[in-house]
Order: sequence, then C-alpha cells, then structure tokens
Amino acid sequence: MTELNITLQDQGHLYEQIYEYIRNEIRKGKLLCGERLPSTRSLAEFLTVSRTTVEMAYDQLLSEGYIEARPHRGYFICETGELFSLEEEKSGEKTGQAAVSEPAMKEKKEIQIDFSPRTIDMSAFPYATWKKINRGILVDGKNSMLSAGEPQGDLGLRETIARYLQLSRGVRCQADQIVIGAGNDYLLMLLEQILGKRTAAMEQVTYTRAADIFRRFGYELKVTGMDESGMLVSELEKTGADLAYVMPSHQYPTGTVMPIARRMELLQWASEQENRYLIEDDYDSEFRYRGKPIPSLQASDHQGKVIYIGTFSKSIAPAIRVSYMVLPESLLEIYHTGCSCFSSTVSRINQEIINEFIRDGYFERYLNKMRRIYRMKHDLMLKELGILLDRFEISGADAGLHLLLSCKKKGTEEELRRLASECNVRIYPLTEYRIDDGMNHRIPERLQKPTVILGYASLTEAQITEGCARLAQAW
Amino acid sequence: MTELNITLQDQGHLYEQIYEYIRNEIRKGKLLCGERLPSTRSLAEFLTVSRTTVEMAYDQLLSEGYIEARPHRGYFICETGELFSLEEEKSGEKTGQAAVSEPAMKEKKEIQIDFSPRTIDMSAFPYATWKKINRGILVDGKNSMLSAGEPQGDLGLRETIARYLQLSRGVRCQADQIVIGAGNDYLLMLLEQILGKRTAAMEQVTYTRAADIFRRFGYELKVTGMDESGMLVSELEKTGADLAYVMPSHQYPTGTVMPIARRMELLQWASEQENRYLIEDDYDSEFRYRGKPIPSLQASDHQGKVIYIGTFSKSIAPAIRVSYMVLPESLLEIYHTGCSCFSSTVSRINQEIINEFIRDGYFERYLNKMRRIYRMKHDLMLKELGILLDRFEISGADAGLHLLLSCKKKGTEEELRRLASECNVRIYPLTEYRIDDGMNHRIPERLQKPTVILGYASLTEAQITEGCARLAQAW
Repeated sequence: MTELNITLQDQGHLYEQIYEYIRNEIRKGKLLCGERLPSTRSLAEFLTVSRTTVEMAYDQLLSEGYIEARPHRGYFICETGELFSLEEEKSGEKTGQAAVSEPAMKEKKEIQIDFSPRTIDMSAFPYATWKKINRGILVDGKNSMLSAGEPQGDLGLRETIARYLQLSRGVRCQADQIVIGAGNDYLLMLLEQILGKRTAAMEQVTYTRAADIFRRFGYELKVTGMDESGMLVSELEKTGADLAYVMPSHQYPTGTVMPIARRMELLQWASEQENRYLIEDDYDSEFRYRGKPIPSLQASDHQGKVIYIGTFSKSIAPAIRVSYMVLPESLLEIYHTGCSCFSSTVSRINQEIINEFIRDGYFERYLNKMRRIYRMKHDLMLKELGILLDRFEISGADAGLHLLLSCKKKGTEEELRRLASECNVRIYPLTEYRIDDGMNHRIPERLQKPTVILGYASLTEAQITEGCARLAQAW
Repeated sequence: MTELNITLQDQGHLYEQIYEYIRNEIRKGKLLCGERLPSTRSLAEFLTVSRTTVEMAYDQLLSEGYIEARPHRGYFICETGELFSLEEEKSGEKTGQAAVSEPAMKEKKEIQIDFSPRTIDMSAFPYATWKKINRGILVDGKNSMLSAGEPQGDLGLRETIARYLQLSRGVRCQADQIVIGAGNDYLLMLLEQILGKRTAAMEQVTYTRAADIFRRFGYELKVTGMDESGMLVSELEKTGADLAYVMPSHQYPTGTVMPIARRMELLQWASEQENRYLIEDDYDSEFRYRGKPIPSLQASDHQGKVIYIGTFSKSIAPAIRVSYMVLPESLLEIYHTGCSCFSSTVSRINQEIINEFIRDGYFERYLNKMRRIYRMKHDLMLKELGILLDRFEISGADAGLHLLLSCKKKGTEEELRRLASECNVRIYPLTEYRIDDGMNHRIPERLQKPTVILGYASLTEAQITEGCARLAQAW
C-alpha cells in the first residue's frame, strides 16, 4: 500500500486537492504503475475528510485513466508513461507563456461533471458471476467454438429472450421471430436488407443516430410533429412514409410515454397498407421508477405491423454489443429466404454467457439492483434540481437515465450550455436531438423553451450534488 | 473413472462397436451425466485395439453430443435426458415396423465422415491461455465495459492487426485504415454503405455466399471465366463491372494461386477508372504448407484500389465472429463521414482478448502449431487418396484446408456424391460453388471434369484414413 503525504489547504475544493496531489505524484513518477492506493475509507480517515470527497477524487482519476479499480482489491496506478511526457512538454510551453492567467488555469483543472445521457453505471455489475459463467462455458462449451452458429442467433438464447420479453414487456413472440445482432445499428442494417428502400418517418426531436442511418441507407426521411402523446399520426399520414420509428415506452430524448389511444392510432395507420411497418425501439424500458411498467407497443399489435428492437447495452453493458429484434410473421419468410446469407454477428460464447445470465436469474437480480440505484440517483437529481425550479421546469422524469430541464425565462440553449461549461459542467442542448427538414413541426410546449438534457446514470451521488450546485450557480 | 465392460465382436468395425456400446450405456442411463470416461490410451490398452480406434469412437460421441471433452481432464458424459426419451420412442416405432431390413439399419448407424471444407480443428486451441487472458481483462478492464468503443474497432487491436498484416501478408496500412467487424458478411454490408450500388464481378466458381450477399444488396452480378491464373481480366473488362471480388492467394474453392502477372492485370483494370475497386478476400492465407508464402494483392497495390478483407474465423474460431478490412485511403473519408453512425459490432472484451492473444505471441505460436497439424492432415490426405490416382486427379493442394478431386473418367458429380453417400461419406460437388448467369464461361480444364471438394480440417487422422478408404471402395 502506498503512503500519501497530502497536506490539504483551506482554499479550493478538498477533492480537487486530493485529485491533483495524486495526479502530480503519478506524473512525477513518485507513484508507479501497479502501486495500490489507500482505500477511500482509510484515506478519508487519515485526512479527516468525508469518504465522498475521496471518492470524487478517485472517480476523476479513474475516468482520466490515471488509476484503475480492481474488484475486491482496490485502486491501482495505471501505466501512464506516454501521457506523462506529453503533459511535461505542455507545461513547458505554458511556462513560456507568462500571459496565462491563474484563474484560467484553475478552471481548466477543475473536475468536469458530465451529465451525459448515453453512459451507464457499471459499478454494481456482477463481474464475479459473469466471470464464473464465462469460465464454465470455456471449459464445457468447446463445441460452441466450432461454428458460426445460426444466422439469427442460437436457439437457446432466442428462447430465453422470448420468455423474458413476454414476461417483462408483454411482447408476444416465438423464438423463431427473434434475431440477435451486434447492436441496434447492425439490426437496422439487417432490416434494410429485409425491408428494402423505404420512406421513413421520425419525430422532430428523436434519436438522431437512427435518422443518420436511414439517410445513409438512402431512405427518404420524413419529419413529423409531436405532442405530449408522441408522434402526430395526422402528420405521419401526410408524409407518405411506409415506415415509422417510435419509442412509445419512453421517447428518447423527450421522455414522453405514448398513451394507448395514440398507440392505437399508430397501429391503425400501419394496418391501412400492407407495406407499412412500425419500428419500436424499446431502448431503456427496464428502468421505470414510478407507477406500473409501460407495456410494449408490440403487445397491442394484432396485425403483425411492429418490428420490436431491444438491447442489452443499457441493461448489461454497451461494450457487449448485443441487441435483438422481434420480426412480425409477415417478414419472417423474406428474412429466412433472403437474409440467411448474413451469418450471426454475435460471438457464440457471448450468446451463451448472456443466456445463462438471464436464464439463471442473475439478470433479473441485477436489473432490480440497478433500478434501485438509478432510482436513488433520479430522486437525488429531482431533489438537487429543486433549487432551480423557480426558473426551470423538469420533465421526462420517473423513467430512464436522464431528465429534461426547460428554462421558463428568456435565453438560449447555447447560453445555458456555455454558462454550464464555464463551471465545468457538461450538459446537452435539446437542439442536438433535432432532425431538420427545413420546416417547423409542432413540438410540445415545454420543449419550445430552451431545454437541456441531463443524464445521471454514470455519476456518483457526490458528483450529482456538486453538478447541480454548479448549475444553480452558473444559471 | 467409469469402468466399461465392452466385449468386442469379430464382425463390424471396432470403433463402431465401442461407439455403440458407450452410446447405449448412456441411453440406458448406466453411464450418467458428469461421469468420466477412460482415457483413449487406457481404453485402447484395455481392449487391445489401436488408440486411433478409440479416438474415432470418442470423436463420434463428441460430435453427436453424448460426451464432452474438458481440456486437461478428459472425456465426460453429457446431459442427454431429453435425447434419451426421444430415441426410445423412435425405437418403439421401429420395432413396430418389422419391414426395416437389417442392412439398412446397419448403414444408418455407420459413422458419417464429413469432408466439409467449412470446418476447422479446434482440438489444439489454447483454451487455458484464452481463459487466462479473459480473466485478466474482466478483472482489470472494467473501463472497457463502459462504452461501445470506436465504430471502427479499438485502436489497440487495429494497431496490432496492422502490424500483423504488414509482417505476415505484406499489407501496407495504418491502423486508421482498418475496420474491425463481426464477420465478413457484416463487413460486406458495411462496404455496401461505403461503395453504394455496384456492378460486381465474380469468377464462375467461387465463394457463392458473397454472390448471394451481392444479389441481396441489389448489385448487378456479373460472372467471368477463369483459367489456372484466376479471373480472366479480358472478360472482366467486358462485364462493365466496377467491383471485382477475388481471392488471389488461394481461390475458394478452386485453390488457384493468382500469379503476379494476372495480379498486375487486375490492378491495371482497377486503375483505369476512379470508381473501380477490388475486394481481396484473404480468407485462409495463414495455412500454406509448401514454398514461400503468397503475398497479398494489396501489397502490390500502389493506387489504393484494393479493399483487403481477412478473418479470424479460420485462424482462431468461427464462433468468435471477428473479421477486419483494410480500406484504401480513397475510401476513408466517406467511411469516416458517412458511416460513423454504425457503431462497432464486436464486443470490446473480445477485442481486448484478441489483441492480447496476438500481441503477446500466442497467436503466432498457435498458427505455427495449426500449420503443422493441418499439413500433417493434408499430407495424409494426399497419401490416402493415392489409391484413387489412376482414375482421379488432385488439385488445390499445398495450402488451405481442402483439396479438389477431379474424375478422369466419365460420370457426374451427382453420381460421385451418391456413391460416397452410400458409404456414409459426405463430399461436396463443385457444382455447389458455381454461380450461374445462364452462360458457359471458361473454367480450368481440370474443373470441367466431374470434381468434388474434400475438406479435412476437422477430421482426425483415423477419420481421414477411413474416409479415403471408403471413397476408394465407393468409386
């Protein structure tokens, strides 16, 4: 265990002093790669500061790659040789430029708090279980290394997913309808092969990556207006689209939950022509904190019009690259006859691990745990943002991993972003989630005000508190 | 350790008797799930038969899923409860049908020997190393679970692949040009996004799956003739194609190696128009047994016309679903601007494992080992097929994992297939590798004769010997 001789100053944040001390010791080569840092508890006792303060410092060192966490063992110094010399040069340059003001330097060094809506919290992930399953499969499952497996994914995992979707989302399907693929983007590519050229409709404020992908496919992209129930079907009808992309359980990023009446309208639209389909992207339905779970749109679909897409990116880890889609019966034949040439994109070992992880109940336990953790962070966000409620309005709460904050007063999103940035807080203007067709479509009133998105999944409680305090100060 | 009380009969193959005895003991529930079988050596000694005989019996039980091999531990009985009752019912039915003749029954039970050209041998795979690397990554690499990673694959692995390709294949590229993806089919899908609609040319006898994929893309597919140097560039020119798919180092399935003169012609063709590209599928270049390694076509390309595709499906395992392509500089911009919306399809943990596996020298050692094993099998094939050389001609030797056998006498491929099938040997008629455009293109003389393909990668030496003997008998 490494000894740290930190002397804390009265000035400046305590966690920053700890962070800077350790970072400098690493840069100077006084803390070497592989050395273990004191535990947060013991360092907090030693310095007589709160454990949260030490945790924030360690979090920042972690996210900057200076240290790494090893489960059950603690925090260790990483290999940072190259980084060191790079920084040295820069400091040298800076020394030459006497004009750099002290406050500017100080600001740059402050720890950034990033309210990214795209990250997740992996700190409670059952690595030990995952490893255990992994080990078992590598020993016993030699056969699964021998071939690419079925193009649509291994039957065992498809059956497990079908059961899970049935129970948790009311999705009605057979294993035969499920296609497992390496991420949603890949599944959309496969859908392009199945559906051919399309005119696709999306709401004006939406998951823009899907819009980029549709454009890349050469699809004609139509934009519709939206209200507090979601996509306006009256506008959808006028677009001439034959494919609509929606997120009825928790629209990204607006957080809108589509009520049953609007769902019926959408299904009605789809049923009016044989060639029309709905893509339901059910990306984060696992995380709902209040009220009953929202069932899937697919559950209400009796005409085989919904292509349901789900992912393990939020519920397990983005890095495992596993998503799944449920094809309606009407598309199965073309998939089986036309697309069997595309072999599976998911490693069979990963398929087996996930299958065992779900089948043996670990997934459910993990989801329950994460729901609790995320709900705690969600509630903390609501509490800490309370101070802003005279000037701001919160929406999109009670589900998912982010909130929306709309400014009741005058101003622009860019101004909000800039002010936050000056306090070293990163927030995400709603404009970034807007697809533009040169027209102004209807959007919910709250979103007509300057609105920013705050994701909280990967932040610690201390970071949430600090981040919200900085925002209150900035705005 | 389980005791086996086998009494061998004089009639019938010895390995079949062993196989049937053990299978029946499992079915009757006398050998239970988890029990260990004697080692091949000790059972061979006990029965005073050759070890190969026991190995063949175990191989068959393995491939039928009755037993499993655990590295360093031996062979264990698998869970087969369901299978058991299923078979019981069937036997019941059969008993009812007194008409089933004895010889027919006998034939069905005989072990099939499958000369599939698509399988590989995983028996020497360093599972322990793989597991060790895996374990290390799951402990230290928490961060790598946190995001989807770079769309084109993690820089570390791309750098490792770039170095490997440079050294082993003469491929000249930077890590920036490499895109890692979940299998060749996926990389072709991504290429469609980069290249847009195309007229693609392939040789008449080729990797038909790529042809299926091009057709699925809506590409116009042109067929060219081929001689002993590969694709006829004079024909290619006439097709109007702007994309040609070739396998210059070892054409699949003909085994043709494209000489430098033809390569130059191809590169010349490509350089004549800005929009023309060559796809070089270098699927099994790791396995060459005689003479110098054949360099890649990409190594001779100074105009940025070659899109190089390679895979770990043959050299590590098909089940890991990892391939890579090297984009020429001219396509990089469109990839980066137009295709960054497609996130990576390979799990980051798998990327890290492969990176470490290659970087730390395990891959090279494993390839050297497999080259020895496959060469041994290749040489054994040549030896055992010697008996057929009065009527057949062997081609495609000295590289890869399969041979071609052409019949000098009259007959059809279908007849050869049927005769082999009657001896429970599966071989692959060349016709299955032919793409048809209604025209008769030139093909090498040897391939105009009835020709079949014999893969040997996953067969044991005993199976190769037995298989070739059966073919000699059948034909």
